[in-house]
This record gives sequence, structure tokens and C-alpha cells, in this order.
Amino acid sequence: MSELKNDRFLRALSKQAVDVTPVWMMRQAGRYLPEYRASRSKAGDFMSLCMNPQFACEVTMQPLDRYPLLDAAILFSDILTIPDAMGLGLYFETGEGPRFKKTVRTAADVDALPIPDPHKDLGYVMDAVSTIRRELNGRVPLIGFSGSPWTLATYMVEGGSSKDFRLAKALAFNSPELMHALLDKLAQSVTSYLNAQINAGAQAVQIFDTWGGALSHNAYREFSLAYMQKIVDGLVREKDGRAVPVILFTKNGGQWLESIAATGATALGLDWTTDIGEARRRVGGKVALQGNMDPTMLYASPQRIRQEVATILESYGHGSGHIFNLGHGITPEVDPEHARVFIESVHELSDKYHR
Amino acid sequence: MSELKNDRFLRALSKQAVDVTPVWMMRQAGRYLPEYRASRSKAGDFMSLCMNPQFACEVTMQPLDRYPLLDAAILFSDILTIPDAMGLGLYFETGEGPRFKKTVRTAADVDALPIPDPHKDLGYVMDAVSTIRRELNGRVPLIGFSGSPWTLATYMVEGGSSKDFRLAKALAFNSPELMHALLDKLAQSVTSYLNAQINAGAQAVQIFDTWGGALSHNAYREFSLAYMQKIVDGLVREKDGRAVPVILFTKNGGQWLESIAATGATALGLDWTTDIGEARRRVGGKVALQGNMDPTMLYASPQRIRQEVATILESYGHGSGHIFNLGHGITPEVDPEHARVFIESVHELSDKYHR
Repeated sequence: MSELKNDRFLRALSKQAVDVTPVWMMRQAGRYLPEYRASRSKAGDFMSLCMNPQFACEVTMQPLDRYPLLDAAILFSDILTIPDAMGLGLYFETGEGPRFKKTVRTAADVDALPIPDPHKDLGYVMDAVSTIRRELNGRVPLIGFSGSPWTLATYMVEGGSSKDFRLAKALAFNSPELMHALLDKLAQSVTSYLNAQINAGAQAVQIFDTWGGALSHNAYREFSLAYMQKIVDGLVREKDGRAVPVILFTKNGGQWLESIAATGATALGLDWTTDIGEARRRVGGKVALQGNMDPTMLYASPQRIRQEVATILESYGHGSGHIFNLGHGITPEVDPEHARVFIESVHELSDKYHR
Repeated sequence: MSELKNDRFLRALSKQAVDVTPVWMMRQAGRYLPEYRASRSKAGDFMSLCMNPQFACEVTMQPLDRYPLLDAAILFSDILTIPDAMGLGLYFETGEGPRFKKTVRTAADVDALPIPDPHKDLGYVMDAVSTIRRELNGRVPLIGFSGSPWTLATYMVEGGSSKDFRLAKALAFNSPELMHALLDKLAQSVTSYLNAQINAGAQAVQIFDTWGGALSHNAYREFSLAYMQKIVDGLVREKDGRAVPVILFTKNGGQWLESIAATGATALGLDWTTDIGEARRRVGGKVALQGNMDPTMLYASPQRIRQEVATILESYGHGSGHIFNLGHGITPEVDPEHARVFIESVHELSDKYHR
């Protein structure tokens, strides 16, 4: 593997000094980019993009080529690859979210679920990781990722997206032992999946707990955080003499940062409802912080975007330990030039906090 | 006006001793009740129910008749009556949320908006309030309500519901003076609307800030909380020798309770992501707390519902200042017998905290 030329992202995660605050964007390889839309129509559909390592590599590189200041690449994939590899049959309906052909609602359903072998059943992801690492050639680090067990479970029980997670929650409330059996299988699967990504070349990993924040504070601890804890405990944390950081991102988890930090994760992802300065005071001694501009701010003027970047940098304050990002994924209608303003502002306005 | 026979709700709001914890449910007059669905089909549609004081009274009374242990009634109405009275033309498409025929996006649009006269332009609401008060005959107190200025503004700018409030937020970010002019008109309108409800007989009022929690912490203070503060400052706070409490409910506002409590509101509504015991430690000296069972818990078994009620009561602990409620509105598919279990459990399990 070639020498890492830009290690700002990894240095900030371990709170080593940096020259400027590193920045990347959740869903940076996405529909807001015309070159992404071209690749996608060439590939046919979204899952064909994910499942073909050449295409996955191509779209992973696109934002880096367009925005040379980006400090990290993230594997192009879907959060639902694991349930798909478990045999549930992931598909996408146009205009709808993801769907599964089979759902998981009974003890027999849970018993029947295999724990996927990441090399055999998710080999296309490992191939994508090693292809991208080769293509990156040390330019920036590569982030691997997975959905959290609870987040995956909601889709598996509901059969797709949901507004209120009625079925998944009712299962958790009425048959907690069944939900725990499902979550336990998922935690094992995510652990081996992320470790395989690390072994294939991912230099950091992020767990997307998109729906943990829909739970009550107690249910969050029992059904989401406990399983992210198991994963954190089971991950490879050092590779080739370098720490492999793990970032936990629970959307709407701002009230629970202390508990999330106590897992031993390297960093917490923050959405835009949290004041990053307060978050630093609450947990910054323990973890690095990633975030947290409202992605909707990218619909504002370039001047307003710069001002918001400045406000967030000032709120975090001096010193390392901050990875700038949006508070959630960039949305399809954003003007790519606004994303450029965002990325460039972070480097331009942050150097004074690192002198 | 007749003597109030059950003042548990009002006593808890002012932290006077109660025998058991009072309980009501957001959206308690709603589609989960077959008698409500019957009234609605008799009336024709949702807005005809709201605009006819007899029908509004009929559906307000239904949950009280079915569940005699409920400790409060809430006016049956919609949060969007004010923008409708401003001339935007509220309508509902089947299966969709609310829509407006006209949107508000320019300075000319904002300038053209009248501040509704609550008696002339929203007389049907005042008639509903006085009709319900008469019909209640002192059984339980009547709660009046309004949407918050920010929440109303999102619908007015977007023209209906929205996933990410892109247009409303871009307006706030790019033309804050325009958004402030709109919010200021709305705050004036809500203040006179709620005062008219109080004068017509509402014994407490609640402001529903359904979408404040979609804002960043800074934007929340600037665009939502500041205008709820104006309303709190302008409300009639005593009537017929009794305090008129005001309850502020920002969904997803759990990180901001200290700021919300500082407005001078009587009570804060909590959604289920907040630990009510922690909330009490944070702000309980200043305000009463209302909430906060996950409404999805009503899809669980009666036994599990009871257990959750017990957990929340135990978390709040001994003494007055807690009004039990769901953390958001009850949903249409809930079994009415599960709502009964919820309501009855609150009284049954709470008396030990008031001895």
C-alpha cells in the first residue's frame, strides 16, 4: 500500500495537531453530482453501481476529483447490503425507499437468518474497498461503513422505510428476546463485515445509526447502543501500525452523547441540532467530533454557507479533534458549486484554530 | 361558568399537590376512535368538523365519554387555522398532508398578509371553545392551542408538509429579515388568537412547535423560540382568579429544555427521546413537565404499556408537576382499548408518588 499523502482526517480523529480542520461530506458520492448520475444510468440502477467494484470505485472517486480539498473518501455502497446478503432480497422502487422481498417478524424468521460471510457473500464490497484503495493511491484515507443493527432491523421487520417504525418497535416491546436475537445476529454480521472492510483496506469505519434517534432514551440504550457497543468491542482497532478509528453516528442522538462516547468509539457524528461547542464540553475529552452543518444550508447563498461554517468552527474552538461534515447526507438538488463553497470554507476559515 | 370538578391537570401545572398524576393524550379526539370517524363522515371532511362548533364540540367530548379518567379536554381544531384565516386557502388532499392554495415566499407576499381578527376571522374557533366549555360543565379543564410561528411558517412557505423544509429554511438563511417579518406577524396573530381562546373559555393553552426541532440549535433560538417567547410575553396569564398555564411543546427539542424553560412558560411538553427524570433535574425547578410515552408503545401489549407507564412515573419520581401524556399524537391505527389501558395505568400506578 502506498504512503498516505493526506492524513489530516486520521490525525484529527486521534486529536493530533492538524494545519486545518479536515472535511468530508456524508453521501458525497451522490445524485447531486451530474457525473454520478451519468455513471448510474450507465450502470443501470443503484444496486448495480454498488455491486460492481469498478463502478463503485468510479463514483467514490468523483467527488475527490471535483473537490481536491476533500480529506477523506467513503466507500460507495448501501447500508442494507447485510440484510440483502442474509437473503431478504433488497430492491428499490422508483420514488420509494428501499424494500425487502422477505421480512423478519417471527422466531422462525430470525432463526433462519444466516450470518453472512463477508468474503463469500459480500465479496463485491471487499473488492470495491481494495479497488478504491488502489485507485486512491494514498491520496486520502478510505472510510468503510455499515448501518447499525437497530437501523438494519427496522428495515428488515418493516420490509422497507417507515414513518414511525410501528412494527419494529412493537416487536421490540412485545418480544424483546426475539428482537435481541435479531440484533445479536446483526451485531455479529456487522462486526465481521467491518473487520473485513478494514482488512481489505478501509482506514476508518463509520456506523450509521440512522434510526436510533426514533427510540425512547431507554429503548435506545437497550436496542441500539448496546449492539453498537458489541461491534466497537469486536472491531480491529489497529492495522499496519496505525489506529483504525470508529465513528458512531446516531441521528437525533444529541441527548445521549455521554453514553455513546462511553462505548469506546473514537469519534461521534453530530447532527445539526447539537451545539458542537457544548458537545465538546460534554464529551470532547473522550472522543473526537464529526459534523455538523444542516445539509439544508447548502440551499442558501455561498456567503451564508461560509458564515455558517465560520460559526461552527468558532463553536468547536481551538485545537484538533474536529472533523467537519454535514449533519446528515447531502441531498440530490444541491448545486455542486455550493458544496464546493462549503468544503473550501472549512479549510480557509479553520487555519486560525490550529495555530 | 360552572365550578371545575376535576382540577388535577391545573393543579399539577402549578405544582400543587394532587392525588394521582393527571393524564390526557395529544390528538385524543381522533381517527383511532370509531365514533370520531362516524362524526367525520357525517360532517363531510376534516375542516368541516373543525369549522362547525357543534361537530367540534361533539368530537372533543368523545374521548372524555369513552375514558372517564381523562383529566383534560383539548379543543378540536387544526394547527393551520391562522394561515387559512390569512387567506392562504387551506385544503387537504386524501392521503396527503395539509396544503395551501397560496404560498408566502416574497416580501410582497408577507406584506399582503393580514393579522386575523380572532373574533371575525376565526369566530368558528371561539364558538367551538364556548360551546365545549358549556358542554363540559366543569367536568375537566379545556385546553386551547395553536401552532408555533415557525411551524406555521414552514407550511406557508412550502405550501404544505415537507421532509426537509428546504424552502422555508433557505428563506430564513438567505432573507432572515423577510422570515422575521413573517414570524412577527404570526406571533402577533397567535397571541391574539390564544388570548381570544382564553377569553372564550380555554383554561390552559398549548403551543405546538412541531417543526422547531428540525432547526439547528442556533436557528431554533432565532426563528422559533424567540417568537414563542413573544407569545408567552403577550398572553393573558390569569382569568377569573385562576392562573392560565401555557405549555410549550417543541418536538425534538430535548437538547434545549433550559432555553425553553427560560421563556416563562408554565410547562414544557417532552417527546419520548428525553428522560423525564433528567429533564426534571435540568428544568423542573422552573416548569412543570408534560409527557412522554412513545405513542408507538400503544401498539404493544396492555402489560407492556403498563410497564412503560410505571417506568416513566418512576423516572419523574415523587411530587407534583407532571402531566402524563404521549410524546406526540396518538396514531389512527391504535386499538382504543390500548389507549384505555394507558390512561387507567397512569392513575392506578401514580398514587404512590403523591402520598
